Amino acid sequence: MTATLSTTPTGITVARGFRAAGVSAGIKANGNLDLALIVSETPANAAAVFTTNRAQAAPVLISLEHLKRSGGTARAIVVNSGCANACTGDEGMQVARAMAVETARLVSCPAEQVLVASTGVIGVALPIEKVRVGLPAAMQALAAEQGAAAARAIMTTDPFPKEASTRVTIGGREIAIGGMAKGSGMIEPMMATMLGFVTTDAAVPKPLLDRALREAVDDTFNAITVDGECSTNDCVMLLANGASGVEIGEATYGSFVNGLRDVCRELALGIVRGGEGATKLVTVTVTNAASRAEARRAAKAIANSPLVKTAIHGGDPNWGRLIAVAGRANVAFELSRASVQIGSIVLFKDGRPYDEAAPQAAAYLNRRDIEVFVGLGAGEASSTVWTCDLSAEYVRINADYRT
Amino acid sequence: MTATLSTTPTGITVARGFRAAGVSAGIKANGNLDLALIVSETPANAAAVFTTNRAQAAPVLISLEHLKRSGGTARAIVVNSGCANACTGDEGMQVARAMAVETARLVSCPAEQVLVASTGVIGVALPIEKVRVGLPAAMQALAAEQGAAAARAIMTTDPFPKEASTRVTIGGREIAIGGMAKGSGMIEPMMATMLGFVTTDAAVPKPLLDRALREAVDDTFNAITVDGECSTNDCVMLLANGASGVEIGEATYGSFVNGLRDVCRELALGIVRGGEGATKLVTVTVTNAASRAEARRAAKAIANSPLVKTAIHGGDPNWGRLIAVAGRANVAFELSRASVQIGSIVLFKDGRPYDEAAPQAAAYLNRRDIEVFVGLGAGEASSTVWTCDLSAEYVRINADYRT
Repeated sequence: MTATLSTTPTGITVARGFRAAGVSAGIKANGNLDLALIVSETPANAAAVFTTNRAQAAPVLISLEHLKRSGGTARAIVVNSGCANACTGDEGMQVARAMAVETARLVSCPAEQVLVASTGVIGVALPIEKVRVGLPAAMQALAAEQGAAAARAIMTTDPFPKEASTRVTIGGREIAIGGMAKGSGMIEPMMATMLGFVTTDAAVPKPLLDRALREAVDDTFNAITVDGECSTNDCVMLLANGASGVEIGEATYGSFVNGLRDVCRELALGIVRGGEGATKLVTVTVTNAASRAEARRAAKAIANSPLVKTAIHGGDPNWGRLIAVAGRANVAFELSRASVQIGSIVLFKDGRPYDEAAPQAAAYLNRRDIEVFVGLGAGEASSTVWTCDLSAEYVRINADYRT
Repeated sequence: MTATLSTTPTGITVARGFRAAGVSAGIKANGNLDLALIVSETPANAAAVFTTNRAQAAPVLISLEHLKRSGGTARAIVVNSGCANACTGDEGMQVARAMAVETARLVSCPAEQVLVASTGVIGVALPIEKVRVGLPAAMQALAAEQGAAAARAIMTTDPFPKEASTRVTIGGREIAIGGMAKGSGMIEPMMATMLGFVTTDAAVPKPLLDRALREAVDDTFNAITVDGECSTNDCVMLLANGASGVEIGEATYGSFVNGLRDVCRELALGIVRGGEGATKLVTVTVTNAASRAEARRAAKAIANSPLVKTAIHGGDPNWGRLIAVAGRANVAFELSRASVQIGSIVLFKDGRPYDEAAPQAAAYLNRRDIEVFVGLGAGEASSTVWTCDLSAEYVRINADYRT
């Protein structure tokens, strides 16, 4: 397996002053790319959100420690796939720390300016000697044109790499925001989710950077689900190195966060489209909820319902399942004012079924992109989340992940 | 399709003074049995628990109303399969009421002494004319030997009928407790679950009967899950007609509730074994939890995890997934004191993996009955729940339920 060839910066390296690499360090038995490196030419302001799982993996704990010790400054991010380095005890902590130390040595920066992430099987030791061999190779391959290789090197069961970028004009000058992410099982963001990495060449003060990341993640990575599982390794990291010379302040924050949200949304939807066994992208919008939090809770319950996801997979307009989930979602719900709409087709409204529209809805469900609306009849708030369908392929992938 | 032949009382008719029938009323298009009737010779004390889903179906609402109006006394229960009569508006309420009125006329009792239950597709009208034709046939077929036919008549996607009974000796005299239940998708008890019907010939005062049902259901029907879905129609109903002449009081309550729990557990485990696409019965025990409620919450999270259920389906001892779920279950959890055991094989203990035992665990997972233990390292409490594996067959069944 050779590194993917690319002649222009993509994803994580679209912003000026960032280089990346993706190499094969032999962590994956099949020889696929499994070690990614992202380096900023100068120390960048860094913000990150991590899994809320109480079994946080070693790389999560080390990255949290480094962000604290460096005061939110980073030069590099090193990521391996093929092994999560989670539930690996003291040995796992030593390996995660050694990854950072070795990277810092090569990049010539303090160890606390290196962030670490891992993804793959839980509970298996990460062979540090393979990382030690892979890192110099990654260092050598480092280039602005290697964003695509880095995006491939963080994949596990992902069917395709996820990259996104945008350019925002602020005060007549352009900044770039770009990123990469991987899915594709154990996906339900509780705070952050999966692995996502975003860079920008804007100069963003640390408090604003942190606020922007949380705001963007809430409506994107935190609004997707593949299977309702929150991993031990989830994180989204954002580096801002200021290479554009454009400084973001309160006045320009809105433009910046909109661009950041666009990139995060594209990456997040890529994760859902590439969800394990997924054949459809499903947008679930809950309306007429008593509060935004209840709208989100009901939307998540619907998006995680195996009966809803299998019905959509089969093109079955079984809207009763949507009502049944809304009814058990522990939110205010008034059946006599509730509604279900699939695409533009109303199937249930004001307590009365319109089952005669079922064939039309069944035809709509053959699409690759599906929209579902459920009204709770309890208020004015709404929320949108994204999910995929549940197929026999999901079972096949996960019944046989390690073997 | 003719009624199942049986020469002895089984399940719901083992207790003296109860007769049952199961007939085909044409509600199911394939002509299978779809209308069940249970009649007590004398008015019985009745207790019931119903779904906590806020979209309660018409038969649930009518049964609640009848229990209230009759003061907890019932002569008959009428159940149809093939149509849930849920989300069917005013028309659905009229149909559910008419089912009770028609049954009461045939049985010669007040309408409020008839309880009603329905199961099947949500949102489709229940044709009352078919019920009106089927009911006299059921009345005619009524016999102590027709318990098995009634158990078949309440099935939807269930692969086999669920019946259970026991005899308990109290003060030298024998009472019988018997029941029937149906699954097999949209199963996660929030209060009660699915449809379950239990009869006894003990004389049990209403407050004791109610207490016994809640207590027995909590450790049985409420401790199972197939897919984490709580239906609009779930209910468990218990009739005690006193035909044995044995009166239950505080002194004999323990013996009675133990017998009741045995019957409920057997029915509940039957539902899990017959879960949609299920090939394995999985007993999940969470130990060392901070409280019983947290133990139950973690056990339910594990039992509902698609990643755990697919791994068990594939015989993959992927214990990291068990830790990952425990870590996200919103319970006190201490990774350094946590543990995972599959059968008698320890795979993770005190923060350290024992991955060398994985092949042994993989061999164990080939069994039909699997036991899984997860210690949270946070206290002394424990709880057990039952679930099944998640197979491609579950997807097939539910992708194509209506069509």
